[in-house]
Amino acid sequence: MRGRDSVDVLSALLPAGRVVTDPSIIEGYRRDRARDAKVGSPRAVVRPTCTSEVQTIVRWAGRHGVPVIPRGAGTGLSGGASAVDGCVMLALEHMRSVHIDPDTRVAVVGPGALNGEVKRAAAAQGLWYPPDPSSFETSSIGGNVATNAGGLCCVKYGVTGDYVLGLEVVLADGTAVRLGGPRIKDAAGFSLTRMFVGSEGCLGVITEVTLRLLPAQAPASTLVAAFPDLVSAADAVLAITARLRPSVLELMDRTSVNAVEDKLGMGLDRGAGALLLVRSDAPGAAAAAEIEAVGEICAGHGATEVHTTDDPDEGEALAVARRMVLPAFEQRGDLLLEDVGVPLPALPALVEGIEAIAAEYGLTIALVAHAGDGNTHPMIVYDAGDPDCAARAALAFDAVMDLALSLDGTITGEHGVGRLKRAWLPAYLGPEVLALNRRIKSALDPQGILNPGSMLEG
Amino acid sequence: MRGRDSVDVLSALLPAGRVVTDPSIIEGYRRDRARDAKVGSPRAVVRPTCTSEVQTIVRWAGRHGVPVIPRGAGTGLSGGASAVDGCVMLALEHMRSVHIDPDTRVAVVGPGALNGEVKRAAAAQGLWYPPDPSSFETSSIGGNVATNAGGLCCVKYGVTGDYVLGLEVVLADGTAVRLGGPRIKDAAGFSLTRMFVGSEGCLGVITEVTLRLLPAQAPASTLVAAFPDLVSAADAVLAITARLRPSVLELMDRTSVNAVEDKLGMGLDRGAGALLLVRSDAPGAAAAAEIEAVGEICAGHGATEVHTTDDPDEGEALAVARRMVLPAFEQRGDLLLEDVGVPLPALPALVEGIEAIAAEYGLTIALVAHAGDGNTHPMIVYDAGDPDCAARAALAFDAVMDLALSLDGTITGEHGVGRLKRAWLPAYLGPEVLALNRRIKSALDPQGILNPGSMLEG
Repeated sequence: MRGRDSVDVLSALLPAGRVVTDPSIIEGYRRDRARDAKVGSPRAVVRPTCTSEVQTIVRWAGRHGVPVIPRGAGTGLSGGASAVDGCVMLALEHMRSVHIDPDTRVAVVGPGALNGEVKRAAAAQGLWYPPDPSSFETSSIGGNVATNAGGLCCVKYGVTGDYVLGLEVVLADGTAVRLGGPRIKDAAGFSLTRMFVGSEGCLGVITEVTLRLLPAQAPASTLVAAFPDLVSAADAVLAITARLRPSVLELMDRTSVNAVEDKLGMGLDRGAGALLLVRSDAPGAAAAAEIEAVGEICAGHGATEVHTTDDPDEGEALAVARRMVLPAFEQRGDLLLEDVGVPLPALPALVEGIEAIAAEYGLTIALVAHAGDGNTHPMIVYDAGDPDCAARAALAFDAVMDLALSLDGTITGEHGVGRLKRAWLPAYLGPEVLALNRRIKSALDPQGILNPGSMLEG
Repeated sequence: MRGRDSVDVLSALLPAGRVVTDPSIIEGYRRDRARDAKVGSPRAVVRPTCTSEVQTIVRWAGRHGVPVIPRGAGTGLSGGASAVDGCVMLALEHMRSVHIDPDTRVAVVGPGALNGEVKRAAAAQGLWYPPDPSSFETSSIGGNVATNAGGLCCVKYGVTGDYVLGLEVVLADGTAVRLGGPRIKDAAGFSLTRMFVGSEGCLGVITEVTLRLLPAQAPASTLVAAFPDLVSAADAVLAITARLRPSVLELMDRTSVNAVEDKLGMGLDRGAGALLLVRSDAPGAAAAAEIEAVGEICAGHGATEVHTTDDPDEGEALAVARRMVLPAFEQRGDLLLEDVGVPLPALPALVEGIEAIAAEYGLTIALVAHAGDGNTHPMIVYDAGDPDCAARAALAFDAVMDLALSLDGTITGEHGVGRLKRAWLPAYLGPEVLALNRRIKSALDPQGILNPGSMLEG
């Protein structure tokens, strides 16, 4: 069998133990957190430990026409690391070094290093790596870069790409290139570093990342405001961001709040139609002043309760509660997770429309949002064992996508397209921009061996 | 004559007055502010008023194999808009609309709109467009995007590309595409918006820009510190940025200070070896506190005098003084302007090395720097009429480039490569990354009609 033979060739090219063909181990690498139902069967999992091994793997894949699916920590939410039949899963979990240069204020890390590991290593030197996807304790920097991951702090501090100063990338022909580097500004040549950010493993394999670090964050003040309904909370978001720059501005609907309360019992207001979680890290007394101003705006937009605290532990516990929403629903059963984002003034219409879709299809759609960025995560809760329910869930997923598009929104703000949102990309981009994406893909991966079928049709 | 004929064809395709062939008018469009000595002769200047006219021009150029040199306001500092023989200068100065959407907090602007016009239009709605190249009153947004222009505020607020949410671009085949849009986060498809930022007109013609706006900036506190020499000032920069995030952190050497004093007579310390200009826009009382902390660091690093002010007019006057350095030297005679940037810890070695180069070649090299970003502008002052002096200036220019490269620095931080720094790009990027740049260029402009010879060899 051809697949078998070519894997033997690859094994011979690499140190012992890199190539795994044990089906019971392979099984654990077939899916990411999106739990893609349509995953294929890999011929092998390969776990390189250095760039030159990645080059060997990619060159071998090119010679044998084998699809290569790069994989970080497997926490992707769009099926960007779903296996396809006959592929190798290129698992980068062993390339996990973290080197902090406190003078240059950069972290040079392997793609498999977890975001939280980088945060802690930076903090040990009095520095801060801001990007904070809710998965930060379990997601890898390589995956964060590949999806241009966001998080809670983006509203003030930007997304992963804003911190990527340099990349080492193995191209489809096996060449390793170093793009950018530890320079804060660089206008020499095309913006290739940025082009690989968010490229979902379709243009090259990221083998090293140079991340910008900031001085340690100031202690934050925190506010939780309860609103009678989602729209009044969304209206408050517009009013807050018009004047202020909080460091966190998150929205949770009633269903999300109750799911977290069931799990953590923090005393959040179960009866509220929506909560806003707002934090300020302005220096010194400015944080409390900014939070006070936020509180006034919330009160003016119908908040029924406003709780503020300068206690950093309490503030962090509230942020943890927000991050627990997705895990809470994942434990309850089947979930279709969306990542739609809209221009900020459309946020009230989006949340209102999602409520209408839930009612129309008789489903629970829980909602959390990086509200200050207009980026929402509707979570369609359903029972995959019930065909009627599953069908309604699929229709509701489509309806949310259509709603976002009708509001000039995007189909994904921070999770990437992967395989689960690929069908909506042509409608979002339009034929000319889709063609331009394909032209870039063809220029960099003419054989189409890198993550085929993710983002673009294979 | 073929050139003449093809221009007649173009004239017939466009409304009257768009195509200019009057040599006396053309002369004013041959060069940008870099005063490239090797500019060619355009066959025409074309001044479109809308995207469809740009498409007509680019399609015509493709059919006739005519080079197209996009030009904003002609303030480029690297010869990115130098004419080449037989080209058309595509002057976008009439595409100058500015539309502010205060609810979405974006500006949708024509490429010819000046940065300062956008700033003022945003300010009229209580909003702020941060990027502030020193040329902001005279440079166009299209040019700012094409070079990924920086400025004084970048140290805290980032460069032009960090504010570009969307672009309309006319590709080399005349297709107009809309990339991105008024969404703060978007992970759908490759990062094409960012790829066109900094592409220097070599990949497409920017015909519209959607810029992110922030709430109005808080009033700033300002500090000027005098140091006995450049290296102690550079050391202070490292200490400041390790702990604090000022909104401006600029360095001026003695020569620059004296040039500005000659012009403005502001009472700056003519005897200082270097000045740091530092501003903080932290909210409320935090600004003064941050400036006080900066002052302590400066004193601890040998500052002989520290002056602070909370008066916004005085602070702005000091920022104006900093921005006057380049014009002051331009009026004095011939100038070779550099834009080298290094990893921050290398800043002291860079400024020390530049002083040594000045001494070695018997030249004045004035220095200003966006010090907090490690981005410096050595200005080699020379007499082009004196062949020996001109030869020494050229050697010194090379030596500064070599020095930056030896310190792991970039040949351009914010001005772009253009034609004046093209010769250094291969050494900076290396052969593989240069080839990758060429691959992108070939994929998007296979005929090579867009700004040939800028950034990459034609």
